[in-house]
Amino acid sequence: MIETLEHYAALTRVAVVETLAGGEPAAYLYDLVRDYAAREGKGLRPGLLLATADACGASTRTALPAAAALELLHTAFLIHDDVEDHSRLRRGRPTLHELHGVALAINAGDALANLAMQPLMSSAFPRYRSREVLAELRMAIRQTTEGQALELGWRRHGVVDLTDVDYLELVGRKTCWYTTMAPLRIGAHLGRWRPDPAAVDRLGFLAGCAFQIRDDLLDLAPGGQVGKEPRSDITEGKRTLMLIHLLGTAPPTDRAWVVDYLTQAEDQRTPCDQERLLRLMIDAGSLAYAEQVAGVLAAAAQRALVDAFADVPRSPALDFLAELVDYLVCRSS
Amino acid sequence: MIETLEHYAALTRVAVVETLAGGEPAAYLYDLVRDYAAREGKGLRPGLLLATADACGASTRTALPAAAALELLHTAFLIHDDVEDHSRLRRGRPTLHELHGVALAINAGDALANLAMQPLMSSAFPRYRSREVLAELRMAIRQTTEGQALELGWRRHGVVDLTDVDYLELVGRKTCWYTTMAPLRIGAHLGRWRPDPAAVDRLGFLAGCAFQIRDDLLDLAPGGQVGKEPRSDITEGKRTLMLIHLLGTAPPTDRAWVVDYLTQAEDQRTPCDQERLLRLMIDAGSLAYAEQVAGVLAAAAQRALVDAFADVPRSPALDFLAELVDYLVCRSS
Repeated sequence: MIETLEHYAALTRVAVVETLAGGEPAAYLYDLVRDYAAREGKGLRPGLLLATADACGASTRTALPAAAALELLHTAFLIHDDVEDHSRLRRGRPTLHELHGVALAINAGDALANLAMQPLMSSAFPRYRSREVLAELRMAIRQTTEGQALELGWRRHGVVDLTDVDYLELVGRKTCWYTTMAPLRIGAHLGRWRPDPAAVDRLGFLAGCAFQIRDDLLDLAPGGQVGKEPRSDITEGKRTLMLIHLLGTAPPTDRAWVVDYLTQAEDQRTPCDQERLLRLMIDAGSLAYAEQVAGVLAAAAQRALVDAFADVPRSPALDFLAELVDYLVCRSS
Repeated sequence: MIETLEHYAALTRVAVVETLAGGEPAAYLYDLVRDYAAREGKGLRPGLLLATADACGASTRTALPAAAALELLHTAFLIHDDVEDHSRLRRGRPTLHELHGVALAINAGDALANLAMQPLMSSAFPRYRSREVLAELRMAIRQTTEGQALELGWRRHGVVDLTDVDYLELVGRKTCWYTTMAPLRIGAHLGRWRPDPAAVDRLGFLAGCAFQIRDDLLDLAPGGQVGKEPRSDITEGKRTLMLIHLLGTAPPTDRAWVVDYLTQAEDQRTPCDQERLLRLMIDAGSLAYAEQVAGVLAAAAQRALVDAFADVPRSPALDFLAELVDYLVCRSS
């Protein structure tokens, strides 16, 4: 499985590097634009797009411009997300705004979001396809900014009165569209076999939610995630499923303490308080609860996959797609 | 002249309001996205686009989606520019990041840059046109982010060894593309009369440079510009033509003082020092020099206008376009 994913990632990387080659001013713009792309990610999103396209009978060559555009867009999101979240590490190195200041980082993100559409404009990519894929990516940007607004707004305004449904609405926009729904929908558009559109969307939503919950759980695991600051979600006061569970189940005094913690400015939250918040989550069973919800969503995603591709002929690509979905929803790194 | 400009601005406003209607979350995203658009600007850019289209024989109805897209894109730039420049006032009110924090403002700018392309996707706008106009707007974004990178990079890295040519290169990218070149080029694309493309580009460059120099001069005028902090360019250490002239002509001790001023952090520049920098510029004849350069560029722009539209039939729209170019290059407010 991993070899196929790496194969897709390597192909995408070549297309990405080609799109980002050259450009002036290098020192203040294009070196920044290229930086995150050169810090290799797992390539989950382009992998999902290429696997779906392949399973639906489109060649990797046909789908590659769309995969490169999606990966570039993802990288552009990361630059602005890191500024918005005050993140200090990305893929094991300082974030772009730590290296070059907030102003140049915002500007590089803008340039990259624009360049991201470049692969779709090449003459190798048919015009009618370009229009379809562009519409999907613009929808993904729309949903992602809406989800990001919810997350940032909840934090800025100290919103604590949240339910699981609010969390899934947030993640459905912030994560699912560009991580799973757009790759699946675009991949399905490109092939001659047409999976069931409603089941594809269901799969995208369920898999994306399970992926995000696992991501949030990994952030809290000892050592945190590779290349990121450990437990940054706790520092940031991010409204994770675990935090929402804790707020909903903690006894009044503990809850009052948590609310007080979330009201503090980010740089006033001490390591000791952060430790206490994690301890409260563990004691309240919030981590176990999130594990359980992720498991239910993962199982439902696997079922949606079967439904979505019921009329698509069995192929190695489809088998790989099923493995990739398993990997996404059950990830442990 | 002003009535026609206001007529175009009013039409554009209707299209902009329509594009930005609705959307959730309103409080954290779409209210922010709509904010700057509701603070009425002069509508110079859509006015220029619509006037050019009209002069070239395209109806305002045909060109309006492109004008709305350009105006929306301009508004998206303003949001990020204000964050990057730490500006506090925009069109007489606090900037978006002053009102809602940097994170939500960046995110709103991203959402708006994406929504800006919406008018081009409507079924009322033919597909082949949509592709052409999108390519022009993407080029304008590219050039604008390149110019912005130069300006921010020069400031961040204390670059003082600059010439008039560097300044014109900066402005040619940062200002001209989205302010004059893209409106002229797009307007010319849409009509059946074809102005001379090379002369159109020359006009766009010359008029845009004259416009920016006048803008920088207005910033230094007593009271500054309507709706902006007065003399913010001096606070920010912006590399204007006046500052570059001063750096190139000041006696060594004065120059050393200026370089020292530019090396300081922005919030350490005292009002007294800012006053001194302005005084040095006046004494060195830097303002008079910039006036002179703007005058030369304005005259050359007027000549380029004649060349560009030599084969386009005389019409009220073409007369208005000439007046608008005069207004742009000679503006006093």
